[in-house]
Amino acid sequence: MLIVMQSQATTEQVKEVVHRIESMGLDAHPMPGSTRTAIGITGNTAAIDPSRLTGLAGVREMIRVTKPFKLASREMQVDDSRVAIGPVTVEPKSFVVIAGPCSVESEEIMLQTAEFLLDSGVSLLRAGAFKPRTSPYSFQGLEHEGLRRLESTRNATGVCIVTEVMEPEQVDAVAASADVVQIGTRNMQNFPLLKRVGKCGKPVLLKRGMSATLEEWLMAAEYILAGGNKDVILCERGVRTFANHTRNTLDLSVVPCVKDQSHLPVLVDPSHGTGRRDFVIPMALASLAAGADGIMVEIHPDPEQAVSDGAQTMNFDQFTRMMQSLRQIAAPLGRTIC
Amino acid sequence: MLIVMQSQATTEQVKEVVHRIESMGLDAHPMPGSTRTAIGITGNTAAIDPSRLTGLAGVREMIRVTKPFKLASREMQVDDSRVAIGPVTVEPKSFVVIAGPCSVESEEIMLQTAEFLLDSGVSLLRAGAFKPRTSPYSFQGLEHEGLRRLESTRNATGVCIVTEVMEPEQVDAVAASADVVQIGTRNMQNFPLLKRVGKCGKPVLLKRGMSATLEEWLMAAEYILAGGNKDVILCERGVRTFANHTRNTLDLSVVPCVKDQSHLPVLVDPSHGTGRRDFVIPMALASLAAGADGIMVEIHPDPEQAVSDGAQTMNFDQFTRMMQSLRQIAAPLGRTIC
Amino acid sequence: MLIVMQSQATTEQVKEVVHRIESMGLDAHPMPGSTRTAIGITGNTAAIDPSRLTGLAGVREMIRVTKPFKLASREMQVDDSRVAIGPVTVEPKSFVVIAGPCSVESEEIMLQTAEFLLDSGVSLLRAGAFKPRTSPYSFQGLEHEGLRRLESTRNATGVCIVTEVMEPEQVDAVAASADVVQIGTRNMQNFPLLKRVGKCGKPVLLKRGMSATLEEWLMAAEYILAGGNKDVILCERGVRTFANHTRNTLDLSVVPCVKDQSHLPVLVDPSHGTGRRDFVIPMALASLAAGADGIMVEIHPDPEQAVSDGAQTMNFDQFTRMMQSLRQIAAPLGRTIC
Amino acid sequence: MLIVMQSQATTEQVKEVVHRIESMGLDAHPMPGSTRTAIGITGNTAAIDPSRLTGLAGVREMIRVTKPFKLASREMQVDDSRVAIGPVTVEPKSFVVIAGPCSVESEEIMLQTAEFLLDSGVSLLRAGAFKPRTSPYSFQGLEHEGLRRLESTRNATGVCIVTEVMEPEQVDAVAASADVVQIGTRNMQNFPLLKRVGKCGKPVLLKRGMSATLEEWLMAAEYILAGGNKDVILCERGVRTFANHTRNTLDLSVVPCVKDQSHLPVLVDPSHGTGRRDFVIPMALASLAAGADGIMVEIHPDPEQAVSDGAQTMNFDQFTRMMQSLRQIAAPLGRTIC
Repeated sequence: MLIVMQSQATTEQVKEVVHRIESMGLDAHPMPGSTRTAIGITGNTAAIDPSRLTGLAGVREMIRVTKPFKLASREMQVDDSRVAIGPVTVEPKSFVVIAGPCSVESEEIMLQTAEFLLDSGVSLLRAGAFKPRTSPYSFQGLEHEGLRRLESTRNATGVCIVTEVMEPEQVDAVAASADVVQIGTRNMQNFPLLKRVGKCGKPVLLKRGMSATLEEWLMAAEYILAGGNKDVILCERGVRTFANHTRNTLDLSVVPCVKDQSHLPVLVDPSHGTGRRDFVIPMALASLAAGADGIMVEIHPDPEQAVSDGAQTMNFDQFTRMMQSLRQIAAPLGRTIC
Repeated sequence: MLIVMQSQATTEQVKEVVHRIESMGLDAHPMPGSTRTAIGITGNTAAIDPSRLTGLAGVREMIRVTKPFKLASREMQVDDSRVAIGPVTVEPKSFVVIAGPCSVESEEIMLQTAEFLLDSGVSLLRAGAFKPRTSPYSFQGLEHEGLRRLESTRNATGVCIVTEVMEPEQVDAVAASADVVQIGTRNMQNFPLLKRVGKCGKPVLLKRGMSATLEEWLMAAEYILAGGNKDVILCERGVRTFANHTRNTLDLSVVPCVKDQSHLPVLVDPSHGTGRRDFVIPMALASLAAGADGIMVEIHPDPEQAVSDGAQTMNFDQFTRMMQSLRQIAAPLGRTIC
Repeated sequence: MLIVMQSQATTEQVKEVVHRIESMGLDAHPMPGSTRTAIGITGNTAAIDPSRLTGLAGVREMIRVTKPFKLASREMQVDDSRVAIGPVTVEPKSFVVIAGPCSVESEEIMLQTAEFLLDSGVSLLRAGAFKPRTSPYSFQGLEHEGLRRLESTRNATGVCIVTEVMEPEQVDAVAASADVVQIGTRNMQNFPLLKRVGKCGKPVLLKRGMSATLEEWLMAAEYILAGGNKDVILCERGVRTFANHTRNTLDLSVVPCVKDQSHLPVLVDPSHGTGRRDFVIPMALASLAAGADGIMVEIHPDPEQAVSDGAQTMNFDQFTRMMQSLRQIAAPLGRTIC
Repeated sequence: MLIVMQSQATTEQVKEVVHRIESMGLDAHPMPGSTRTAIGITGNTAAIDPSRLTGLAGVREMIRVTKPFKLASREMQVDDSRVAIGPVTVEPKSFVVIAGPCSVESEEIMLQTAEFLLDSGVSLLRAGAFKPRTSPYSFQGLEHEGLRRLESTRNATGVCIVTEVMEPEQVDAVAASADVVQIGTRNMQNFPLLKRVGKCGKPVLLKRGMSATLEEWLMAAEYILAGGNKDVILCERGVRTFANHTRNTLDLSVVPCVKDQSHLPVLVDPSHGTGRRDFVIPMALASLAAGADGIMVEIHPDPEQAVSDGAQTMNFDQFTRMMQSLRQIAAPLGRTIC
């Protein structure tokens, strides 16, 4: 960590900062420069609250060198984490596909979709029972009836369930019905919710906030890991930028950066990332090529009749074509689609 | 609302879209153009879920013309909303100042700050008992002990309390201790929380999400209004952009845009908006000049000792200078600082 | 095109807008709605200057439906453009690789690099003679001496040259030395330069501006096409966002969007897009998988000694590994690396 | 400056970096930490080309502490720069208003506007003869005929002229006709143009690039200053973000940041910053309150007939109201409108 003093900072102010650093049990290394003094800090700086130092007189800024996350960091754990979900393990040699409708649909459609997926070699079904909707007047999901339908779909077919939880009070109910509990983009920094899923006993799929830095995302994962839940799977879903040709801007280069800084697996959601079904296949292939551990996509037997997000939802034929293309490039990359 | 068809869309596809529109009880106005057909939609389009139409074959995109918010819209209510908080009313002729430390501090500091504010003509004290922190290892606030201190500060001095709530289960406790319940930037789209504060019986200060569009922000307000709570106060606090000279990019032009589209009052938080105390005064003045209904700023008797956010916290002298400057330009603008 | 009137717009104002539209030789379709009137416009709207209509009294906004580019649009030309560069043709079945040092280096290094590339099956060499540098105190390129070295490298080896031009007065000199003239990200909207390269007689590689929308990028291409030069190749190189884990945010989903809206080929520059050499290989593979027509990357025999951009420059071994990986997935995708 | 080594960097790699630093005539201060080594650099680091160090083996990143601009920096010149333009001086006690149509209009309109401005106490007229237009099919300005009209307006009235230059070859002609030469947002990093106006002998108004950081903007100013031209005036005009309620996001907090880091004056353009005339007045007032040295706005006797940018152009009545409001708050702020 580095404290940069203002150019007009006095010797007294430099001394006061050094004193404050040392009183925190850390070492201070003042470096007087031609225009200003910088002060290096060494020791266990991860626990420092920056605002304890940046408020001091004469301080211009503090620059973090050591990353503030610990349990999520590659330095803490060199080997890639492996997360088991039913018959599937999310790990570098595999490429996991999660698919299903945006919202839980009728029991017939859920069953039809689950069976289609299992026939396609896919064992993870996604669908939302609780739906975060921008408008209070939009359909808010089937809620507990949705959970019930997900359970009966699982019981009938053996498919595993990925579904979203939106508030701490729902965690127990959702974790009881789901194989993977999903935290949506709007809740990436819902800290009470993160603490609660850290104790829920099920793997957690943590979507990136729509304007979250990589560091904030890994710090959100750190909340879950610190709660004792080691099964965290990250999921990139596009970030918010000025660009308006897609619904969000899919940040695929975050994939190798996650791998560089963390041992956690990372998936990509090209459906929300692009917002248009004809862009899903190329971005699914690109996700695999970029080194992601899997994808999550929206499918529906008849997207024109889907309860929500029809524009970005593929039909079964499109999904089958995507799986074929994925399998073709997975082999030379040493990966297995599952 | 306008549906834009793909240039190669067939006559059948256009007919199907028209049929779907009419089956929703709306009117469709097809306009065949030189390269493609567009279809205007009139009627009560606010309730339309876009994904019901954008998923149809041949549709390129749907463009909203009517805004999707109703209760928050200027068209629904022409006169500016007025929100009473103790002796103060947030309304266009006044300019409300809310100030206090980032987190609840010791009882002595809280008392000292409240008395200083009241002496300065300010009757709204802010301080966080529940703190959303990026790191699980940072101080998370005094929680219920913090609420108790806020209450005793109010009881001892008569100051009004503005404090944040982070999860639905806390709403009752926070609303009991606070005069204004604050929703932080990370929770702007925490819909279960918005629904709950819509029923809490206290005014709600709704901070803008760090990457929220104006429409999403007003839709979040709509959730609270739709719950029956008419006392919503918006608060701009900076958005996330590529710019790195301030902690966030304060979007002051949103102030006249809010006034244009909505009847709700809007404050500005120049402390979080800039992240540096020496930028707070110019941006506070600019907020007043831009037409905001007030500001929320961080102050502390000794910012270097503040529990959090010291760098952006003003001391009492700086606050006094700010108040003097605000009063000087408020008079010619026909506004009264309170 | 659609004009949206303000909700309080008068009948006279609507009439005046209709009149203005018709006086431009277009058709106006007024659609009175429940809260406001919208006016559809059909006819050859591409030539309309929006500011002629948006300034009229009572107009809230104008929404373009037809895209403003013509020569660049897929609707104008359904078949993909093919651009020949020496022995290579940029077209959907191939995947073109352009590589070389950031700046022109010594004659030995240029020769060594060109021969290595030709041995690797790559015939396009990139290197900058004129360098746009953020600081006036940084090395500004070898300029005309750089062009001379590029020519002698081509003469000695037969490699084709891709190099940047920065101002209209340089176009003739650069076009004489280069096989492809490159327009850098900072000059994407340098309109005098675009007009000049529209007449230069060589293919133009047009990098996307660092905050350009897809529409602005295609309009920049339109400037070149309108000058009579049909050989325009687009190149995505990352855009500017809040994200700080890479130098820029590589927007790979723009690739299928370009293909959807335009017939022009599009390459990706993962070196500038990420800024770190160990992220170049995964993003190069992802570019191929996403459907790009090729990549441009920075290589150097000894990146630690490179004159500029060493951090994102691969050495020859890394490049060889990248080519192997690209070839492995190109085959199943029906593409040929060249 | 600080070099952060990778956590697995070897002692040899650290030594090599230290050696490279010392060979540049600088001092290296290695600081071994618990997880990695950082190396402080002191001496005249402004001239260091980062890519000379970041490409070395074992280096994770380089962090600049000293700003790379020199002539533009507040540290180099403590007192605010003053720029004289005819009867006006841009300096902290004044608040300069520049106004006029977007493009040069007919001689009658130019004359009418100039006389109106002079009657209003404003002596700087803006209008574009060369217009950067997104579309090659849009009106590109009157070009040299435009310059002629500007000159005749000046000769007839005594108004001073601010007008844009778009390419190096035009600089002499524009500087001959103008009192202030303007560099537009798209040309902020057109380095050949910056070098040329550094020698033009007229004050330069340098607009911020639409996605430029403060550092890049000041580095662009540095190009002009380094050419020998001390009369640089900065102009904020809004940056590109996800926000869509205004044409650009006006970044008013850049004003106190410019004042903090540089001695150069800074204006604000609320017309381009917002894109709507009814938002111009509040943002003009906010610019003054935030400490800007002036504003540049678009006016036209009949905005509905303006050749371009009608939606953001004020009529004379609106301008008069704006001037009255500005004068009312200028007095208490110790500023004089001119």
